Amino acid sequence: MAELADIGVLGLAVMGANLARNAARKGFGVAVFNRHGARTDELISQYGSEGRFHPAKEIADFVAAIARPRPIIIMVKAGKPVDEVIEELIPHLDEGDIIIDGGNSLFTDTNRRFHYLTEKKLRFIGMGVSGGEEGALEGPSMMPGGTLEAYSRIEPIVTKMAAQVDGEPCCTYIGTEGSGHFVKMVHNGIEYADMQLITEAYDLFKTVYGLDAKTISDIFAEWNKGELNSYLIEITAAVLAKVDSTGKPLVDSIVDEAEQKGTGRWTAQSALDLGIPLTSITEAVFARALSARRAGRAEAEKLLPHAPVAARKPSPADIEAIRQALFASKIIAYAQGFEQLSVASAQFGWKLKLDELATIWRGGCIIRARFLNRIREAYKAGGGASNLVLEDYFRDAVLKAEPAWREVVGLAVASGIPVPAFSSSLAYYDGLRRARGPANLLQGLRDYFGAHTYARLDKPGKFHTRWAQDGEEVQVSS
Amino acid sequence: MAELADIGVLGLAVMGANLARNAARKGFGVAVFNRHGARTDELISQYGSEGRFHPAKEIADFVAAIARPRPIIIMVKAGKPVDEVIEELIPHLDEGDIIIDGGNSLFTDTNRRFHYLTEKKLRFIGMGVSGGEEGALEGPSMMPGGTLEAYSRIEPIVTKMAAQVDGEPCCTYIGTEGSGHFVKMVHNGIEYADMQLITEAYDLFKTVYGLDAKTISDIFAEWNKGELNSYLIEITAAVLAKVDSTGKPLVDSIVDEAEQKGTGRWTAQSALDLGIPLTSITEAVFARALSARRAGRAEAEKLLPHAPVAARKPSPADIEAIRQALFASKIIAYAQGFEQLSVASAQFGWKLKLDELATIWRGGCIIRARFLNRIREAYKAGGGASNLVLEDYFRDAVLKAEPAWREVVGLAVASGIPVPAFSSSLAYYDGLRRARGPANLLQGLRDYFGAHTYARLDKPGKFHTRWAQDGEEVQVSS
Repeated sequence: MAELADIGVLGLAVMGANLARNAARKGFGVAVFNRHGARTDELISQYGSEGRFHPAKEIADFVAAIARPRPIIIMVKAGKPVDEVIEELIPHLDEGDIIIDGGNSLFTDTNRRFHYLTEKKLRFIGMGVSGGEEGALEGPSMMPGGTLEAYSRIEPIVTKMAAQVDGEPCCTYIGTEGSGHFVKMVHNGIEYADMQLITEAYDLFKTVYGLDAKTISDIFAEWNKGELNSYLIEITAAVLAKVDSTGKPLVDSIVDEAEQKGTGRWTAQSALDLGIPLTSITEAVFARALSARRAGRAEAEKLLPHAPVAARKPSPADIEAIRQALFASKIIAYAQGFEQLSVASAQFGWKLKLDELATIWRGGCIIRARFLNRIREAYKAGGGASNLVLEDYFRDAVLKAEPAWREVVGLAVASGIPVPAFSSSLAYYDGLRRARGPANLLQGLRDYFGAHTYARLDKPGKFHTRWAQDGEEVQVSS
Repeated sequence: MAELADIGVLGLAVMGANLARNAARKGFGVAVFNRHGARTDELISQYGSEGRFHPAKEIADFVAAIARPRPIIIMVKAGKPVDEVIEELIPHLDEGDIIIDGGNSLFTDTNRRFHYLTEKKLRFIGMGVSGGEEGALEGPSMMPGGTLEAYSRIEPIVTKMAAQVDGEPCCTYIGTEGSGHFVKMVHNGIEYADMQLITEAYDLFKTVYGLDAKTISDIFAEWNKGELNSYLIEITAAVLAKVDSTGKPLVDSIVDEAEQKGTGRWTAQSALDLGIPLTSITEAVFARALSARRAGRAEAEKLLPHAPVAARKPSPADIEAIRQALFASKIIAYAQGFEQLSVASAQFGWKLKLDELATIWRGGCIIRARFLNRIREAYKAGGGASNLVLEDYFRDAVLKAEPAWREVVGLAVASGIPVPAFSSSLAYYDGLRRARGPANLLQGLRDYFGAHTYARLDKPGKFHTRWAQDGEEVQVSS
């Protein structure tokens, strides 16, 4: 093995191991290292024949096995372990070597690491990788952020490792600093909303219409043939169809407590910082939090008893109404997420290309969907609309879905079935499409108790009414 | 003026000046200092006769004028200015002197400053102060956090400065570190929800029922006589009744763009960190953000045109339904906020006394309300329920309001009026009162694409189905 490796992968848990195998299968020489060498041995013994692996037991040997300037993907737990691995690597690196963090790091950590390593004349790429285990092996969607010249070094490798759709790789240069991890974070936030919307549709079918898992599975399978066509709708049909060893649908035996790892929460927190009304994703995050309080819910059910909903067979129109509600709500969730990307891009100076993000999400990743072609087209056309909902395709879809959407949310409200993502998406839509909202009263209240001032429709400037004094209005700025 | 001052106030913008006057009027000697001396002169020339002021033009003189150990309230803009003022003060202070930050600082900043000053053998109190200008002067609600012994030093002063309700001061020791600012932050978050709920009721009256401002004002004035009795309902009636110099209702001329200063956003972000489903407050924050996009809303109205709602005269029952919806939603918002306080208390080791928080919010502050007596009673009784909604008074109120609540949200949904806080509160309620929710499907999906595993209802342990391989279920932990 005199030849040097093209790339290194440090951290060989399932995601790291699969990325390493992916690169090796595509013909690249891959140096591999893991803190516990047994895992390295295991990888080589099981999959060593898949390509040119350069296993190393010492970090110095690992680094030395890679061709300079060295691209090294690190796949370790987000947070402190990333900093620790970076510190371990630094003494062995040469100027211009590139550390690529392929985990789900918080973008502000990536910003910090980017500047820290730049000062040390090293290069750092924060690369979002979506697609789970299977994607990592077969071709994920990859979102690398850092300098363009660092990206150029790894481009031939990562564009081959990525999923391919219509001959285009699901990988492109995102922007500087932590922009790759930011984009991946919003991707995950959208994934939260997508899943919550699916869950709400399932709940309505199950609880209001009394359908069994198999019947609901068939509905999702049917939906997957149309405009909702996507990976998540496809696997929803598969999960609902699954019968386990008890002979009953697996889904009916799974505990209804959703877990979460943090990226959805970060997305919501970032939206709050940026002033983006990101209601659908945030409600999805909160719905998971509420689901996780199972003991509290059981206690509440006893103290707040309700008669069960009397199930009634759905007509084809009832089923179609739920599909329309899901589709319209999904459009809102994506519009909000893309607005967050747009505002962050402007605020952080990242120059994100939104059409390219839609492009690389069409394959490999969890939210991959036919739908993303439409988003791509909307942004490629460079339309002037400030919001995806206002672009022709989505506007038409939402206007068409609107009556059914209202009907479904109304049905859920009347039936006592929580549909927080459906209903918050509709409330956002109804708030967006009004030139005149009710926040004038809110500004009046703020001026009353806090002298926060208000603007007037009929003249410029900021005003304060001396409410508790003489009741006169004074102009406080022009 | 040989006698030393009892307390110092640094920063004489309106809140600081009013707190200084408050202390002086209550008989305390008050040293006052402002970066620009002109404001100090102004305070003394206008209000010097109200009590014993010790104006100072140099920070050294200001500090020297106060009796040791010196309590010094700083009232400057949150953020860097607080750190700057602390650094300016430190060289002049003696061991045991107490800096009291009375601004709206982020609690994590207060945590940091608390430990920083403790190391320097100084004492630090982060004190939330609510009540706006008028409260600062006449008696605010005060939420001091720090060490109990530091609080003991200032207790005789602040309990006199605070508002009094039924002979009890609206001020009590909150807990250590930044707990006082945390509690004030959640107070403000609840205030956001309260105001949003009022705004939604106003919108329904105005848009669905076509009522004018005066008529809506009368409704709020009437509501203020019952269980909704509160400062915010009272001033809503006043703001809506206000006719300005144009001879028309002022509220109709105010621009519908709500502003915000950060505490609502922080509350939502903290809830996300703590895993609390804080939907009502968060929707209120997002509703403000959406209101602020006025140009975008005007554009959207053109591209998503809707026929105006045909107004219809409300019956007394229609009005009562909106009152019930507001009341039930308010209970949810408070239940969520108090859960946040409870979880934070446990997580940060603050030992918050929730009944005392309800007690000190009954007067002085913006959310003061009759309602808080009920919360106080619920927590004083030390009931075992995990959620305020489950306590007798609130449970009965919510169950009674429920039919009207559903009807009002349904009406809003059908009419195209956004009621995000009403509807998210209802969705939370419907999610809470169910032992079995739909998140089992979500866990199935997560296991499918990410091998995140799931728990089963019928046996202990964590399981993974090898979906894409042989379809077998494997137990991954016990």
